[in-house]
Amino acid sequence: MTLSSHVSALNESINALRAQTPLVQCLTNQVVMNFTANILYAVGASPAMCDNPEEAADFATHVASGVLVNDGTPSAEQMEGMRLASAAAVAAGKPWVLDPVGAGGLQWRTGEVKKMMDANPATILRGNASEILGFLGTTSGGRGVEAIDSTLDAIDAARELARRYGCVVAVSGPVDVITDGDDVVKLANGSPMLAKVTGVGCSLGAVMAAYASVTNPLDAAIAATSHLNIAAEISASEAKGPGSFVVGLLDALDALTPEQAADRVKLS
Amino acid sequence: MTLSSHVSALNESINALRAQTPLVQCLTNQVVMNFTANILYAVGASPAMCDNPEEAADFATHVASGVLVNDGTPSAEQMEGMRLASAAAVAAGKPWVLDPVGAGGLQWRTGEVKKMMDANPATILRGNASEILGFLGTTSGGRGVEAIDSTLDAIDAARELARRYGCVVAVSGPVDVITDGDDVVKLANGSPMLAKVTGVGCSLGAVMAAYASVTNPLDAAIAATSHLNIAAEISASEAKGPGSFVVGLLDALDALTPEQAADRVKLS
Amino acid sequence: MTLSSHVSALNESINALRAQTPLVQCLTNQVVMNFTANILYAVGASPAMCDNPEEAADFATHVASGVLVNDGTPSAEQMEGMRLASAAAVAAGKPWVLDPVGAGGLQWRTGEVKKMMDANPATILRGNASEILGFLGTTSGGRGVEAIDSTLDAIDAARELARRYGCVVAVSGPVDVITDGDDVVKLANGSPMLAKVTGVGCSLGAVMAAYASVTNPLDAAIAATSHLNIAAEISASEAKGPGSFVVGLLDALDALTPEQAADRVKLS
Repeated sequence: MTLSSHVSALNESINALRAQTPLVQCLTNQVVMNFTANILYAVGASPAMCDNPEEAADFATHVASGVLVNDGTPSAEQMEGMRLASAAAVAAGKPWVLDPVGAGGLQWRTGEVKKMMDANPATILRGNASEILGFLGTTSGGRGVEAIDSTLDAIDAARELARRYGCVVAVSGPVDVITDGDDVVKLANGSPMLAKVTGVGCSLGAVMAAYASVTNPLDAAIAATSHLNIAAEISASEAKGPGSFVVGLLDALDALTPEQAADRVKLS
Repeated sequence: MTLSSHVSALNESINALRAQTPLVQCLTNQVVMNFTANILYAVGASPAMCDNPEEAADFATHVASGVLVNDGTPSAEQMEGMRLASAAAVAAGKPWVLDPVGAGGLQWRTGEVKKMMDANPATILRGNASEILGFLGTTSGGRGVEAIDSTLDAIDAARELARRYGCVVAVSGPVDVITDGDDVVKLANGSPMLAKVTGVGCSLGAVMAAYASVTNPLDAAIAATSHLNIAAEISASEAKGPGSFVVGLLDALDALTPEQAADRVKLS
Repeated sequence: MTLSSHVSALNESINALRAQTPLVQCLTNQVVMNFTANILYAVGASPAMCDNPEEAADFATHVASGVLVNDGTPSAEQMEGMRLASAAAVAAGKPWVLDPVGAGGLQWRTGEVKKMMDANPATILRGNASEILGFLGTTSGGRGVEAIDSTLDAIDAARELARRYGCVVAVSGPVDVITDGDDVVKLANGSPMLAKVTGVGCSLGAVMAAYASVTNPLDAAIAATSHLNIAAEISASEAKGPGSFVVGLLDALDALTPEQAADRVKLS
């Protein structure tokens, strides 16, 4: 695809999301559940945090439009819910996004999500550079949820993982790198403020799951990243600090038009 | 009771809540714990999220003024805490509110909270129209936490449940319906913004538990609904989007006077 | 130390925190996880909420700069993670802070954290007056997370606990009392608004763990308390209510300069 076709796809994806209001089943960490739910509402989707083993598969099969698995605060019980939901999503032909928080640095969770990925590859694998490198096994991983590597250093790892699993890999950072194994798209929107609040990266995974239910995985990852990062730019331009930045981010996500997004996106 | 007596009761209930600052034990979902706690403080009550099986009954018996049970993200362990706390509340003569999130649509949790309700009927049963219909078993339930039915279609179901359990049933939506099985009160305050943020309905259950500790169940449900919905109207009139709406909602809940509430309430 | 030396230490500690951006491992309650993470970012530190038994010790040993244990919503599983992380922190020579929420009033959790403290004394023990008295066993504890005693009534208890465990004890309230068993420092900054939002006390424990990784325990407790309370004063002076107070608090924590802090601190 040409760059301009990705830009017009961005415009169409935002319209499609708001028309279809997909319901994203989030099996995610306790830190960001509230924020993720509000981010999903603000972009035009809906959340449901159904993550217990008793109901997770049933919900993925019968109710969810897409599924997010984020292992930021995993318990053994939630991990089992994640395994069941990801398997059910694949069986039902629904997209699921894996955000392997702390991959490489934390052994137990890394092993668990790799097993899920091997058994039922995700539609999109999303993380910061340290997590993507850590998932491949080429570094010892980041400092908890923080990246210590550059996204540009993770391009080869992202491409390799995308080919191995037949998925899209999205590496977030000051420059976001998104690849399906062949095409490599770079996005340069965003704000340093994004590193001063918790949960934006985690919410990005949920927004990718929403977009992946209305368009192809590559354009879903581009649309989610651009929707969030352009809204962040708008909010940061008026924020006094991290508190008002978060408030303005939610307002801007809701107000962003497809035309504004297509106009402001920095895609290469 | 006449409509005007409900309005004067609203005025008195708000004063009583702020004078007594009841402590609400919330056994609720992980998504809304922080928001619910801040909503309780803002209306003039206090929160305590004590939900483990080791302590839940003891806290309900000896410390709490009222109890909220909301099964939005249930684990088997928390479900046991809910069972113990609701039984202890009834034994101690304290009000408890059941918010059966996802009732009808999610079988495991629906079965569990029905058993609690059969064993120790709640003071107030609160949900959206799909959950109330789903609790009665007349529909397959909503889309996670979202209603797909109108509150007016749920009036008969609400009445039947109120009579069966000897409780008040509150159905929230654009028009809120509240009944004790005989009287049916409709409230028409609120804002479309309420559907763009997570946790307002869940917090409403907690506020009902607070009011139920200072007045009768019917007027408690009316006061909680009106306090939240009128503050939402005030906040929505100045909000730029869902982020600033939430901030303004907390400010307006705290600032609302009993006279303003009685003046603005749309009760029929 | 003289009072003026504590003031100059405050200035230096804020600079050191922002230069070193310590990573605080938070094993804390579900209500405040998001807020605590954002507070840590706003003061200049970083959060990681790693609390499962599978990973907690490893993270404390190899990744964390300091550890917070707050038992506000404990499960048996999380309690085991807390035990492992606190032991690992002591073994690795890293500071850990214990915030015994509900101590005295809730028996199960009080017993569990006392065992941790006996086995591996914390660097700083932090609570409201009722919790500190309850931890010592001289009252029946507070109303959940709320104090019903004055911090000045808890000075003797704080001193006794500080001597017993060789730690610093910090008692928060309108006047904060901080002691290492010998020196008793009182801090009089803050705002009544702090009692109208949830999680500020809990976040204070996390900020103490951050500061304890860059300075001695006594000055760490002073710096954390002052950073938060002075930012609260600044935010409260412009807030319309509890919603805008929280937003302004995060902005003010980020914007506060060491010079402003040293200038405004009310230390005696």
